[in-house]
Parts: sequence; structure tokens; C-alpha cells
Amino acid sequence: MRSLVELIAKKREGQEHKEGEIRRLIDALMAGELADYQMSAWLMAAFLRGLSDAETNELTDAMLRSGEVLDLSSVPGIKVDKHSTGGVGDKVSLCLAPMVAACGVPVPMISGRGLGHTGGTLDKLEAIPGFRVDLSTEDFIKTVREVGVSMIGQTAQIAPADKKIYALRDVTATVECIPLIVASILSKKLAEGIDALVLDVKVGRGAFMKDVDRARELAEALVRVGTRAGKRVVALLTDMSVPLGCTIGNALETREAIEVLHGRGPDDLVACTLALGAEMLVLGGKARDVGQGEELLRKAITDGRAAGVMRSLIKAHQGDPRVVDEPDRLPRAPIHLDVHADRAGWVTGIDPRELGLSAVALGAGRTRADQSVDHDVGLELLVRCGDKVKKGTPLVRIHARSRAAAKDMEPRVRASFTLADTSFPAPPLVLGRVDASSLTS
Amino acid sequence: MRSLVELIAKKREGQEHKEGEIRRLIDALMAGELADYQMSAWLMAAFLRGLSDAETNELTDAMLRSGEVLDLSSVPGIKVDKHSTGGVGDKVSLCLAPMVAACGVPVPMISGRGLGHTGGTLDKLEAIPGFRVDLSTEDFIKTVREVGVSMIGQTAQIAPADKKIYALRDVTATVECIPLIVASILSKKLAEGIDALVLDVKVGRGAFMKDVDRARELAEALVRVGTRAGKRVVALLTDMSVPLGCTIGNALETREAIEVLHGRGPDDLVACTLALGAEMLVLGGKARDVGQGEELLRKAITDGRAAGVMRSLIKAHQGDPRVVDEPDRLPRAPIHLDVHADRAGWVTGIDPRELGLSAVALGAGRTRADQSVDHDVGLELLVRCGDKVKKGTPLVRIHARSRAAAKDMEPRVRASFTLADTSFPAPPLVLGRVDASSLTS
Repeated sequence: MRSLVELIAKKREGQEHKEGEIRRLIDALMAGELADYQMSAWLMAAFLRGLSDAETNELTDAMLRSGEVLDLSSVPGIKVDKHSTGGVGDKVSLCLAPMVAACGVPVPMISGRGLGHTGGTLDKLEAIPGFRVDLSTEDFIKTVREVGVSMIGQTAQIAPADKKIYALRDVTATVECIPLIVASILSKKLAEGIDALVLDVKVGRGAFMKDVDRARELAEALVRVGTRAGKRVVALLTDMSVPLGCTIGNALETREAIEVLHGRGPDDLVACTLALGAEMLVLGGKARDVGQGEELLRKAITDGRAAGVMRSLIKAHQGDPRVVDEPDRLPRAPIHLDVHADRAGWVTGIDPRELGLSAVALGAGRTRADQSVDHDVGLELLVRCGDKVKKGTPLVRIHARSRAAAKDMEPRVRASFTLADTSFPAPPLVLGRVDASSLTS
Repeated sequence: MRSLVELIAKKREGQEHKEGEIRRLIDALMAGELADYQMSAWLMAAFLRGLSDAETNELTDAMLRSGEVLDLSSVPGIKVDKHSTGGVGDKVSLCLAPMVAACGVPVPMISGRGLGHTGGTLDKLEAIPGFRVDLSTEDFIKTVREVGVSMIGQTAQIAPADKKIYALRDVTATVECIPLIVASILSKKLAEGIDALVLDVKVGRGAFMKDVDRARELAEALVRVGTRAGKRVVALLTDMSVPLGCTIGNALETREAIEVLHGRGPDDLVACTLALGAEMLVLGGKARDVGQGEELLRKAITDGRAAGVMRSLIKAHQGDPRVVDEPDRLPRAPIHLDVHADRAGWVTGIDPRELGLSAVALGAGRTRADQSVDHDVGLELLVRCGDKVKKGTPLVRIHARSRAAAKDMEPRVRASFTLADTSFPAPPLVLGRVDASSLTS
């Protein structure tokens, strides 16, 4: 049997690992027999030499089996989850999950926290007074069974190898590597005990993938490896060249997601939620196609069932369900400062990354994983791409902890808007779709 | 200023580091700001992406300056050392250094221990009763000044960054990388405070470099980077397709080296010592060319000066100088077992790697750096490549701790000899020479 160092050398030489070799590396890492500095050397070799689908599959499975795989057999039906690669203003999970659950598809969702310019679902949920994201796995399963949806954070038992490897990648310049990203995403999601998965691969300036080719490459790898793992997987490529919806910041985004459940909310957010939700209903066997899926989702909004599931979800997580009907119960920052256009023109660009980082600077996010966040602060867009503004038109409202903090951020926030003399068509929201049948290879 | 992670990403992308960036990495490593797992990711990136001469130069210098650089200004003359990349039976340093010192060139030598199939000078010296390789740097400098030569091990103060990085490379599959090898060798050698360096790059089955092209690549890199660092550097490529000399094992090799000082010793060992020594005398300004250098070295043998320096060297290191004239004072293993030819024929091959590993198995070497060695055991070749043998001719004498150990090794030792029906010319000893003027680029 090859030594662990020989396995690192094998990947360094660009050879494909035989079945069992990657599992040995991961098992040895978790057993303390492979040191972090050996794992990071392998990760760099994998980054530069690549991993085949079979290797990525084994890596996913080894990371998944480093921890607990939830047993959702007590929940009837086809369990479907959604994962987004992360964007600015992406509060889709908060409205999507109750809508899909209201249509009869159980949604067991394990989410993350915000880091860098992108937000995280857990932080948004915690803006709801009392909401707990740390349910035990028993309570999580019970809530999925009884409410149709539950949303918690990655526990220490879920894919601990992914946690360890992710932390290493973050500090060893091995993050931007498709097979490693695929294994990280899928190991966590498959640990939920799901049957099917819809992926929202964000594309553009505010996303991890800046261009559509690279995003499609990631989407295809996710679908290929997820399919190999025996799951039904669909990926949508969606636009992240501008923020999604009109709000950035935890309580603001939660409020906007609740708006969607009441049949309001900005068009792009609604469209994104419906597109992803319809795919989930098809995978969950509740709709024959996405057209019918969207119809069912709209109906769940109009007849109040989606909002009802949201109330039950919040209650099951010990939060205050009254926020669904009285959103003013959500926390609000004390200071509001509107930023005005310094010229007339068409809004042709709103930089999601700059606004995401501005929100972080206001306290809404983190630059390091161990920081806490301020749920109340953030940004509220008052214009959208394609709007015509006059000089002095308010572009965005800063929600801040102090006037000084708001004033500090004003120039950066204003500079995030591009005003031009001619209008420019906004990009479509859904840029592509990948499923097992559409794979190019 | 770029973050340390960005520096790792830069090498990962195959970009050349700007001046100061590699120094920052090494300084951060030694200050505990760059973790081992970050260093190993950078090492793997450097392995796969390469390092330019300027980068290798900075790496060498940063590792060198992580510790103490010996101040040999109190020693008059041009200080010259020799470094071998390691082979089987390579006891050249032990006879070479006193010979060169006897000709007036001071030799400050910091050596290593054996690991794997190759032996180490320190272990051979320690076969001399009482010999201490752990002199203080003050005593080392004093001995070089008074005797003309001193030989010690790498202290904790000499290039500690190299020590740390070498340990990491060993377990992260990043050893076989020319720029990293160059920086490791030169950082240690330049820390000796030398003015010039002769390199013996071994080529063949018993060496780190198996083929002459790769060995020349290493030799050229060593000469280029050493020259950039302001030193005069010459490299010889020498054959390691068979063991050097007739002995493998510490006391046996020390005895053979002493033979050379008395004008005896096997031809190949004498030739290798003279070739390297002549280069050292030229670099040290004591000979105008290698022809004159060899002549001076031979004279130092015949008039007894070389043996005299050896006595003084041993005395200065608290060893028993009588071994020079009474080699039976060196330790000997209790069991001798001759291995005989199982057929008649010409000796056309003697596998240095197999014999080296056999000697390790007898106890003469180490498989792990923390093991101790048995100075007394080893192998004594009774025939050389090109000899004609009958069936039953003794090929080699095993010097072992026990009869069982000797018997155990007999088949492996016999199998290391190739006997053929036709003779085969032995390869030349010196396969090439590289100096600053002969560089191809």
C-alpha cells in the first residue's frame, strides 16, 4: 500500500487516484495521521493538477461520511434542498423554503453564515427575535416532518472533514478550485439526507464566479458529481451583476423575503424564487414541469399557505412568528441616511460587491469567521438598474448604527451606482440551466 | 502590501515573486505568522510552478539569514568547502578535507547524517573513538584556523528555516524540486562563511539524480545561484551507478578514507578525491589549474602532511588520533560472512542502492532521522565492476552484529551483483563539469 506521502506525490505528478486513495487521505486527516501541512500540499496539488469526477465523487463521499448523515426516512416524500453559491442580497432561501414546503415538498436546509461581501441565511434568520438556528438534529428532523421545512447551521457532526478542509483552503490559496468547491458543497448537502438538490450558481461581479463560462463549468461539475452520488440535481445560473432584490443586511433582507410570501417583493427576487422553487417542485414530484411548479408556488402565496408555513417554521425555531404579519417587529437601525444622485441619468450599474462590502463595513457582515454581526444595519436600494433619475433623486437608504457610520459610507455607496446618459438593458435573471440530460460531456 | 495568502496564490498562478516577497514568507514562517500548512501549500505550488534564479537566490538568502552566518574573517585565506548530493560509499569528505587543508586551503565543513540508502559524514566521523561533531561554533572556527579544517553538524543556529522547510518537504512530497534543493544546499553551505564551493553532483542508480541530464540541470542551478550569491562555485558530475570505493558502513568507510591519506585506497575513490580536491585548490588560489592541484594533493599524501592534518583534526574533535596509523583501533563488527558468486562471469553491475539499503538493514544507517546507527557493521566489496570471477569467488564480505543478521542479508547482497558472460566497460568517474563560464544560459 502506498504511503500517504506517496499519495501526495501521485497527485503532484498529475496522476488519477485509484479508488480508495482519497478516502484514505481524508480518513487519515480526521484520525490525525495526515497532518494539516500534508493535506494542504495535497490540496495545492489537486488545485493545480485537477481532480476527475470519480475523484471528486470519492472526496465528496469521504467528507460526507466523516460525520453524521441525517436519516430523514421518518419524513414522507421526496426531500429537496436548494443551495446558492452566494451573492449580495440573496435572501431567496427565506421565502423559497416555506413556499416549496407549502406545496408538499419537504425542505431540510442546512445553511451557512455570511463571510466577506456575501451574506448568510443563518444571520438573516437570527434577525427574527428569538429564532434559534442551533436545533438538535432530532428537532431538525421533527420540524421538517411536522412543518415541512427547517433551517439550521452546519453542526459539528455534519461533514467535519469539510469544515477542517475548508478552513485550510481559506488560508492556503486553494479556494477557487471547482472540484474542491463541488466536494465541499455536495458533502454538506448530501449529509442532510436529501433526495434531490437545486443549485443556484450565481454569476457576475457580486458572485464567486465572475463569468458565465466558469459558472457553467461549476454548475456542470455539481450536476455530474451529484448525479454520480445518486441524487437528482438541477442547477440554474442566475445573474449577480447587481444585488438581488432591494435590500442588503440581515433584518432588511428578512423583511423583504417576508414581503415575497405576501405576494409583494421586487420582481427579480420573486422571479428567482419562483424559478428555483419550480425546479424543486418538479424534482419533488409535485409538479410535472416548471410552468406548473410556478403556478403552484404562486397559489401557495395567494392562499396564505406559504406565510403559514413561515409562521410555523419560526415558531418551531423558538422565534416570534408575529414578524410574518407585523414586520415592524423586526429590528431596525436607529439612523437612516439617504444617498442622492449627484447627476441625472439612467442607472446602468449597481456594484453588488461594493455594496456588499459597504454593508459589511456598517456591521452587517464579517471579514473573519469569528466576528458577530449587527442584524439591524444595511442598505435599502431606492432605485434599480434601468431607472431614470434626476440629480438629487435618492438612490439608496443607509441603515446605520450611528450617523458617523452612515456618513462614512456615503461616498462608497454613491460610487457603487453608475449613472449614464443612455439606458442599458438589464441582464436576464436566469442565464442558464444544467441538468443530467443537458451535460455536454 | 499583499497578504501572505495572496503570495501563495501568486506562486500558484505561476507568477514570479517580486523582490522581498519570498523573504517575507520565510520571515513570517520563522515568526510563526505563516503556518506550516501555508508553507507546504506554497512549497507544492513552487514545486509545480517552478522558481526563477532570482527567486531561488532570495529563498537561499532568506533561509541563510534565518540563522547565524559564521564569521571566518579570523581565518586567513580563501575558505573552500565541498558538498556532495549523496551516494553510497561516498567517504570522500573524510580524506579530501585533510588533503586540501594540508595544501593550505582552509576547509570549514558542516556535514549531515545518513538517511535512507545514503550515508552521512557525521556518522562516519563518529566511528572514530571519542570524535565529537558537536563543537561550538567558536571551537569550530578555532579548529579551522589552527588545523585548517573542522567538520561539524548543522547546529540549531545554522539556517533554521532550511531545517524547518526540509522537514516539511520530506512529508509533503516536495523534495525532488531543483530550486528547493539548490536553496537548501546553498543556504547551509553559505552559512559556513565560505568564499568558494565545489559541488559533487552524484549521478546514477545510487544517487538522488538518476540521469545525467537531470544532474546537470541541478549542477547548473547550483552554480548559477551560488554565483549570484557572490561565491565561486564549480560542480563536478560524478558516477554513482556503482558504490564509490570498496566499503559501505561507517567504520569501514572511515578506514578506507584513512587508506587514501596513506597513498593507498581504491582507484575510483582516489580519483574522485583528487578531482574534487584539485578544484578546491584552484578556487582557493593554491593551484593555477587542476593538474597542478592534483600534483599538490599527491605530494601532501606522500610527505605525510595529509595524514598529519587528519591526526590534528581528530585530536581537535576529542577523538583518538592513533586510528590514523593504527586503523585496527576503529571498531569492527564481530561477524564476517563472505558472499560467493553463484556462477562464473564478468562483474558488470553492482547496485549501489540495494547495497546501501542492505547496509541500512544491517544497522549502518537510518530509515528515520531519529534512529541511531551501528558504526561497526557494513559491507566490504571484494570485487569491482569489470572483474572476472569464478563460481565461488567471494564477492563481498558482510560485517554484521550477528550471524543471523548476516545470513538474512546474504541473498539481497548477492542479488546486487550482475554477473555476465561478456565484460562491459565501467562508466567514467567524472561525467561532467560546470562552472560559471560553462553555463548554457
